[in-house]
Amino acid sequence: MRNPPLYFVQPYLKTKKIHPENQETPIEFISDRSIPSSLFYRRNHFPYPKLTSENYRFPITGLVRHPRIFSWNDLKRLPSKTLKVVLECSGNKRSFFEPKTFGEQWEKGAISQGEWRGVPLRTLLEITGIEKEAEEVIVEGYDYGYRSDLDRLYPYARSLPLEKAVHPDTLIAYEYNNEPIPFKHGFPFRLIVPQWYAMASVKWIKQIHITNTAFKGAFQTIDYVYYPSRENDEGAYPVTTMNVNSTIQSPLDMEILNTGRHTIRGIAWTGIGSISNIEVSIYDGETWNKMRIEASPCKSYEWCTWAYEWDVSRKGEYIIKSRAIDSYNRSQPKKPLWNKKGYGYNAEDQVKVLVE
Amino acid sequence: MRNPPLYFVQPYLKTKKIHPENQETPIEFISDRSIPSSLFYRRNHFPYPKLTSENYRFPITGLVRHPRIFSWNDLKRLPSKTLKVVLECSGNKRSFFEPKTFGEQWEKGAISQGEWRGVPLRTLLEITGIEKEAEEVIVEGYDYGYRSDLDRLYPYARSLPLEKAVHPDTLIAYEYNNEPIPFKHGFPFRLIVPQWYAMASVKWIKQIHITNTAFKGAFQTIDYVYYPSRENDEGAYPVTTMNVNSTIQSPLDMEILNTGRHTIRGIAWTGIGSISNIEVSIYDGETWNKMRIEASPCKSYEWCTWAYEWDVSRKGEYIIKSRAIDSYNRSQPKKPLWNKKGYGYNAEDQVKVLVE
Repeated sequence: MRNPPLYFVQPYLKTKKIHPENQETPIEFISDRSIPSSLFYRRNHFPYPKLTSENYRFPITGLVRHPRIFSWNDLKRLPSKTLKVVLECSGNKRSFFEPKTFGEQWEKGAISQGEWRGVPLRTLLEITGIEKEAEEVIVEGYDYGYRSDLDRLYPYARSLPLEKAVHPDTLIAYEYNNEPIPFKHGFPFRLIVPQWYAMASVKWIKQIHITNTAFKGAFQTIDYVYYPSRENDEGAYPVTTMNVNSTIQSPLDMEILNTGRHTIRGIAWTGIGSISNIEVSIYDGETWNKMRIEASPCKSYEWCTWAYEWDVSRKGEYIIKSRAIDSYNRSQPKKPLWNKKGYGYNAEDQVKVLVE
Repeated sequence: MRNPPLYFVQPYLKTKKIHPENQETPIEFISDRSIPSSLFYRRNHFPYPKLTSENYRFPITGLVRHPRIFSWNDLKRLPSKTLKVVLECSGNKRSFFEPKTFGEQWEKGAISQGEWRGVPLRTLLEITGIEKEAEEVIVEGYDYGYRSDLDRLYPYARSLPLEKAVHPDTLIAYEYNNEPIPFKHGFPFRLIVPQWYAMASVKWIKQIHITNTAFKGAFQTIDYVYYPSRENDEGAYPVTTMNVNSTIQSPLDMEILNTGRHTIRGIAWTGIGSISNIEVSIYDGETWNKMRIEASPCKSYEWCTWAYEWDVSRKGEYIIKSRAIDSYNRSQPKKPLWNKKGYGYNAEDQVKVLVE
């Protein structure tokens, strides 16, 4: 753009569905390191719950020594922690699977990042005490409704293994980017589970229950399970930590560019350790260039931003790719691991452009 | 949806590009027969022009007997006409071409409909008089900028053959849905050419010039031309009237439905005559059902809305298709006519769904 725009232009959430509301972040058009809540992707299974005074407290029950109800004031009085965290829907990039898989056709924007403030769940569990047999912590949200495959009202609920629940960075959050969490993102209390796909970060917390058996909720045993086979459930395993991944934000896929200098830029993130390396290819993966990582070293929980200055004089078509590697040496595969419900897409990202 | 939503949910423009601004109407989520201007798709080649007092008048020059400048007040004093018109970008549905074509990757929403009020261009040309040699009317907008394939500043301009320019429904519009045209849609004056793809409906009219030679502007000779061959320009011909077309608004592609009753609904439109028939197939085009057309008969210039109540008890995958036929007996092809720049996509529309 040689001419700056004279009128204000803003990106919007990309509408995928209205009821329930599913809209994605216009990730290609965002450079903020904390996504404003108005552009934070919205992913719902059910209609929005009705907010009442009941929402401002939740009980912790089950295998605890002192079951109790925690109020808004209790939470605000306890020591808080603020973490910048990537939340990524496990269906992010689902629309790129071949063959296509059913469900919301997310492009690259079912991901956002920002600062969540709250009390570690661990702190609350230290107050209630935990029985020795405890193995899982079930967190239920206020959202509920019908599923296409079950014949009754069903709440949104997920369990965490005790180990992850008591991780000091698993938060009962009450603020996003220094404001109370917006209603659509879980006000007043939302579980934040860094490094796990965001189905674990239950919104509108209604109750927390500790058990010694494996939770069988539909969002744990039917959905959010990788089914590698089209025909049956063989080899199925649960969706948990985010895969190592990267997204090219610019240029856009199928964009037409002129010769000259263009900035190829994007983000990279992972669910274990941190990003250690990002590479970009201009030649469809034949040769790769190591990226300058903008915030070095990349921090756990956050995405890295990266950029590459591309001087191009030869006209023609180019396939640009990006791939990230994390500190556990996980790298993006050339082809995604296809699975029936379309979770965890993390193949090398690519855009095709025409230079003329 | 058995539970009505308790909180307001609205669709947004789907952001395709910020500079210049290209955002599409969330057509699947709209039932208005006049799209509110906030959700009218935005398609720009250049940055928005700067609005000055000069914009409130434009000259008509060239092969006219009495060249003159028309002011805002002149226009408001002349007899006006209000037409409900579909405007469709000729790149609408470009993203569905296989192989993919370069340019904005429009899905189904580079189309909108609403009421344009203005003075027929014919009225102005009756005032100026036209010389006998006149053959084309060039309309230039205030928007200009660089193109990736040319090395100088270039204005947006298009010509119409005289016959189309003097059609009584070709308007110099100044209102959209009973309000002054929003700036982003051409305020104060926009050409409205019913039945032609919307590249003809020049925004921010700067000047009108009558000639006896074929206009060679880049948006007429380079862009908005069908190039059926990938290798060369053989068989090229200009983009003009809209093809007969239809779009399924609901269900969504790759949506998961339960057994029971679902409304399949959509729109259909054409650039010649009017829609005479709309058919829907539940079985991938093997059998077709004739639609109840909601406003009968369908009017020229407008889209028809149609709906089909589908009772489904058999679980499984379905490919749902729609096809429209117009009063000139044009129908949607099974496969689109591929062309290098990706214009005029009008193959039978389809969505795949899973019933479980």
